[in-house]
Amino acid sequence: MINIRTDLAVESRELYKKGSGREVPGVEVEVNSENEISITTVKIVDEIGAKIMGKAIGNYITIETPRIIHYDADFHDLLSKTLAKELGKLINLKENETALVVGLGNWNVTPDALGPRVISKLMITRHLKEYMPEQIDEGINPVCAVAPGVLGITGIETAEIIQGIVSKVKPSVIIVIDALASRKMERVVTTIQIGDTGISPGSGVGNKRMAFTKDTMGVPVIAIGVPTVVDAATMANDTIDMMIDNLIEQTKDNKAFYEMLKDIDKNEKYVMIKEILNPYIGDLMVTPKEIDSLIEDMAKVIGNGINIALHPAIDLKDVNRYIQ
Amino acid sequence: MINIRTDLAVESRELYKKGSGREVPGVEVEVNSENEISITTVKIVDEIGAKIMGKAIGNYITIETPRIIHYDADFHDLLSKTLAKELGKLINLKENETALVVGLGNWNVTPDALGPRVISKLMITRHLKEYMPEQIDEGINPVCAVAPGVLGITGIETAEIIQGIVSKVKPSVIIVIDALASRKMERVVTTIQIGDTGISPGSGVGNKRMAFTKDTMGVPVIAIGVPTVVDAATMANDTIDMMIDNLIEQTKDNKAFYEMLKDIDKNEKYVMIKEILNPYIGDLMVTPKEIDSLIEDMAKVIGNGINIALHPAIDLKDVNRYIQ
Amino acid sequence: MINIRTDLAVESRELYKKGSGREVPGVEVEVNSENEISITTVKIVDEIGAKIMGKAIGNYITIETPRIIHYDADFHDLLSKTLAKELGKLINLKENETALVVGLGNWNVTPDALGPRVISKLMITRHLKEYMPEQIDEGINPVCAVAPGVLGITGIETAEIIQGIVSKVKPSVIIVIDALASRKMERVVTTIQIGDTGISPGSGVGNKRMAFTKDTMGVPVIAIGVPTVVDAATMANDTIDMMIDNLIEQTKDNKAFYEMLKDIDKNEKYVMIKEILNPYIGDLMVTPKEIDSLIEDMAKVIGNGINIALHPAIDLKDVNRYIQ
Amino acid sequence: MINIRTDLAVESRELYKKGSGREVPGVEVEVNSENEISITTVKIVDEIGAKIMGKAIGNYITIETPRIIHYDADFHDLLSKTLAKELGKLINLKENETALVVGLGNWNVTPDALGPRVISKLMITRHLKEYMPEQIDEGINPVCAVAPGVLGITGIETAEIIQGIVSKVKPSVIIVIDALASRKMERVVTTIQIGDTGISPGSGVGNKRMAFTKDTMGVPVIAIGVPTVVDAATMANDTIDMMIDNLIEQTKDNKAFYEMLKDIDKNEKYVMIKEILNPYIGDLMVTPKEIDSLIEDMAKVIGNGINIALHPAIDLKDVNRYIQ
Repeated sequence: MINIRTDLAVESRELYKKGSGREVPGVEVEVNSENEISITTVKIVDEIGAKIMGKAIGNYITIETPRIIHYDADFHDLLSKTLAKELGKLINLKENETALVVGLGNWNVTPDALGPRVISKLMITRHLKEYMPEQIDEGINPVCAVAPGVLGITGIETAEIIQGIVSKVKPSVIIVIDALASRKMERVVTTIQIGDTGISPGSGVGNKRMAFTKDTMGVPVIAIGVPTVVDAATMANDTIDMMIDNLIEQTKDNKAFYEMLKDIDKNEKYVMIKEILNPYIGDLMVTPKEIDSLIEDMAKVIGNGINIALHPAIDLKDVNRYIQ
Repeated sequence: MINIRTDLAVESRELYKKGSGREVPGVEVEVNSENEISITTVKIVDEIGAKIMGKAIGNYITIETPRIIHYDADFHDLLSKTLAKELGKLINLKENETALVVGLGNWNVTPDALGPRVISKLMITRHLKEYMPEQIDEGINPVCAVAPGVLGITGIETAEIIQGIVSKVKPSVIIVIDALASRKMERVVTTIQIGDTGISPGSGVGNKRMAFTKDTMGVPVIAIGVPTVVDAATMANDTIDMMIDNLIEQTKDNKAFYEMLKDIDKNEKYVMIKEILNPYIGDLMVTPKEIDSLIEDMAKVIGNGINIALHPAIDLKDVNRYIQ
Repeated sequence: MINIRTDLAVESRELYKKGSGREVPGVEVEVNSENEISITTVKIVDEIGAKIMGKAIGNYITIETPRIIHYDADFHDLLSKTLAKELGKLINLKENETALVVGLGNWNVTPDALGPRVISKLMITRHLKEYMPEQIDEGINPVCAVAPGVLGITGIETAEIIQGIVSKVKPSVIIVIDALASRKMERVVTTIQIGDTGISPGSGVGNKRMAFTKDTMGVPVIAIGVPTVVDAATMANDTIDMMIDNLIEQTKDNKAFYEMLKDIDKNEKYVMIKEILNPYIGDLMVTPKEIDSLIEDMAKVIGNGINIALHPAIDLKDVNRYIQ
Repeated sequence: MINIRTDLAVESRELYKKGSGREVPGVEVEVNSENEISITTVKIVDEIGAKIMGKAIGNYITIETPRIIHYDADFHDLLSKTLAKELGKLINLKENETALVVGLGNWNVTPDALGPRVISKLMITRHLKEYMPEQIDEGINPVCAVAPGVLGITGIETAEIIQGIVSKVKPSVIIVIDALASRKMERVVTTIQIGDTGISPGSGVGNKRMAFTKDTMGVPVIAIGVPTVVDAATMANDTIDMMIDNLIEQTKDNKAFYEMLKDIDKNEKYVMIKEILNPYIGDLMVTPKEIDSLIEDMAKVIGNGINIALHPAIDLKDVNRYIQ
């Protein structure tokens, strides 16, 4: 399983369940669904669960929606409110505690630009609280934000940059937004994962060697991740699995064939596919043709979700009117 | 074959050859290769060839390269010169005859923005020839260009807009640049197709119902197309074909299995895959994660290719210096 | 007066009144003012008025506002509604008659990009009415739009491009949006001029030699213009006039000085200033530092004004929600 | 003098000389000129000079050029080389010492976007030196860069962000690029000021309350500043001065008038002009209409100047080819 690329807890769990036919030990799962939006809370409670899931002990909330429809502003608002509600479960800011929002990713690479785009939608208030507190209403908390860019642009580990900023700003919580890789195209820009364990090495679309965790940052790190790309090899792999399962169905009577197909080891197969594909598509990550507007819409959804989660006094109507 | 999406003559030909084991009747093919660049000239000579290929009688030159490496300016120049040379075979402008270059596609959709991006790299000279001819050197021809946008942006058929402009500008040739769909990810932004039959309905990434041909425009239309997206279903389909061929190899001894696999009708299979995939990915077109820089590099390659093809007096060095 | 650059009817009138102390003959003026917005209707009724004003016989409605405040969405909406109301006085579209909106200017030059930015805010419906009429509500009229770019980008006179498009689309009215030059910095992106006589040579920020008028286009042309730049020389000139008037006040007793100052011929002076300034600032046009957000806000105001003016069924709330 | 806005040492000096008729005490000035480029080195040697100049003790090199011509790539290269040579006089990096380049300013405000644009033109190498030293040639030094944005975007003092990053990166020198305000339109995007005393409060186009100096950063700070805006009031003021000087010339014989004019105190006058202008243009900063391309050209000039100054092994030809 290790060599199959996913950043999503729900996908790690699916993989395990598909392989083993049972729930992951050391993991508690709760699923709720309401008007087209399903919310899966995966709680990794011990080291066994952590090892199998390949993720740290902690909470992973996944919001899954049908296709994001461009211009469907009402659904975007509904999604922002859902995100805000789930964020509220992981963030416990006292009044006037500062939140630092970090938009990871490369603004020159559309599928990796989600983080920076979200930053551009936020209500930034920390400086106002500092320089003109009397003008700021109650229920507006100090929020600051940065989108530092990626290693190739700055020459500096992004986590190092943030550590430096944290040492000056001393926030009570860090919210990190990042573009992820998914195993399934249907998840791209339709799934939002929130976690309270930060971001660990190797994950994400870009190259972020150093972790964003409470250990490295000294304060809780909430990660918001959205799949924006899929590994072409895993996509092919999944298609072939569907194909084989389909053949197996069709050929229950042809015993030899049936056995033969069942014998195909899926990991071996994945490696083989990599071998077949690599020569010409290499480690290709693909994204939908409509990625520009998908990123823009999702950035607005997440930005507004954070705005209403961090500022109790803010009404989504205001945000939609005054943040462009 | 019909329901397999491709805009490339070389792919239509491959499909036929793979199916029939022989060259397409009514089609003459010539392949040349030089320092990593292969040039395939497909000449459709009669209606039979046209029917099988699903393309009009005429010439289709395909320039195929390995992966476009960002920053490899020398290779970009080599490619521009190759393009210019091949364009020269299809365009016969007399001195001071006007060329109109049309960049199709939607500048808000990165994989569809190739056309407009190319326009931004061109040396536009028609107005200078008109208003300050004395200042223009010999060997600089009148070139004008437009990127009108797509139907959804303008509300007008792009071909209608161009017909209107043609009626005013009266060019001697039209060069149309468009983003295409390919069956294979390895072709995306590595293959350039030049044709002297224009662009016909339904092709291309966007929606261009009306044709850009000599019939509709009244002057020869040279089409330059570059695949920037792949239909996820055809990609899956091709992967599975590779997989099956691979299984067939492995199982020559298992006769029943072997026969069974050989019996899988590929068109049927494609339809089935569509059925399997559609529910969740629909008619998904995918593009590489790096599409932004790929489009930018290819736009420069094509822009410079056109610049040196249309202006005999122009040296690529100058172009690289003065066009940004 | 001739050599003093202005595209605004209200400024031509001011200049004449200041010079002559009386209203321009052949011109009828009506001024209305409501919640911070003043509306001046200048009706040029005969050739004498036209000659003095340097504008064609027709109606010129000028909407003047205080500084546009970024984020003041309520005021933006008020301004859109005011614009829609005034546009309604000049446009008489019958149901299902087509409007063609043309965004003039260069999208690469921020102060000249107003036209193209407005186009991006419009509800484009002509193609929907044509291809899926059943899906379009009553009260939604066919609207199409183009932003063809400037002569330097296309090599083609913009008016020629539009003539070509008009010959295909056959609209009942053309609305042309353009960035203008003003004599006073306070008007920049605070004043909107609507006229029913189109746009004539030489006016505007860019170079548009050919006119956009009923004569050249064959249908009524409504022009919407907003000053985005000021000629540095006229700005200096006006400052010096203020200075001199000020000195005159201070020195009523110093007769010689007083006479001397009064003798300064303002046109001569303007020429002299040009001489003083030209060597180092040439024909410099200046724009406020905040031009990027000013253009964006004004584009939204005008786009929405046009949307509600052309589509009786449209409510501004919907527009704000669904057009980004 | 204090209330006249300038960030340029050469302008402070001009003002003093114009007022006092002599060189500023405590200041040494050297002027060199070569092919259209003049280089003025202002050395503030003591506190008296510092007080009069309103700048810290240190070196200020000003590169003045005629109008930057778009597309004049040869002149751009000449300017980059000149900048590199002058930078070399203030920066003494030992091999493998790290330089941190900081692009100040707001990328959403074109005249304030110079810093971020320069960053995008730099050869970033620190991470390569760290992760693949064997692949990096000798003569390539570790360079990293950030464009953190402005207080209104981040909610954090930019200097605080940089202090944090410095504490992690431990550079040997910081180079800060910023857009400045000039008193004269002719300097806008034609003058480059280099200083070895960093940037002090209040200067610059944006709001940067905290200083970038050796005191605040712990390492030498080289500032590169380019005027991109002019205060409309100072522009008017200077025009009126020219006008008055002109009148004085014309009226040597009219003694009363002559005396009267000479009596006009220029600071008083400036205040008065502010009063006249403020009501309608407030603290307006203006910029040329062509600011977009001016910023882009100057960003390339400065970026390349820094590239060749910091990387002895780099040839400008390579940079032009490989950095876009």
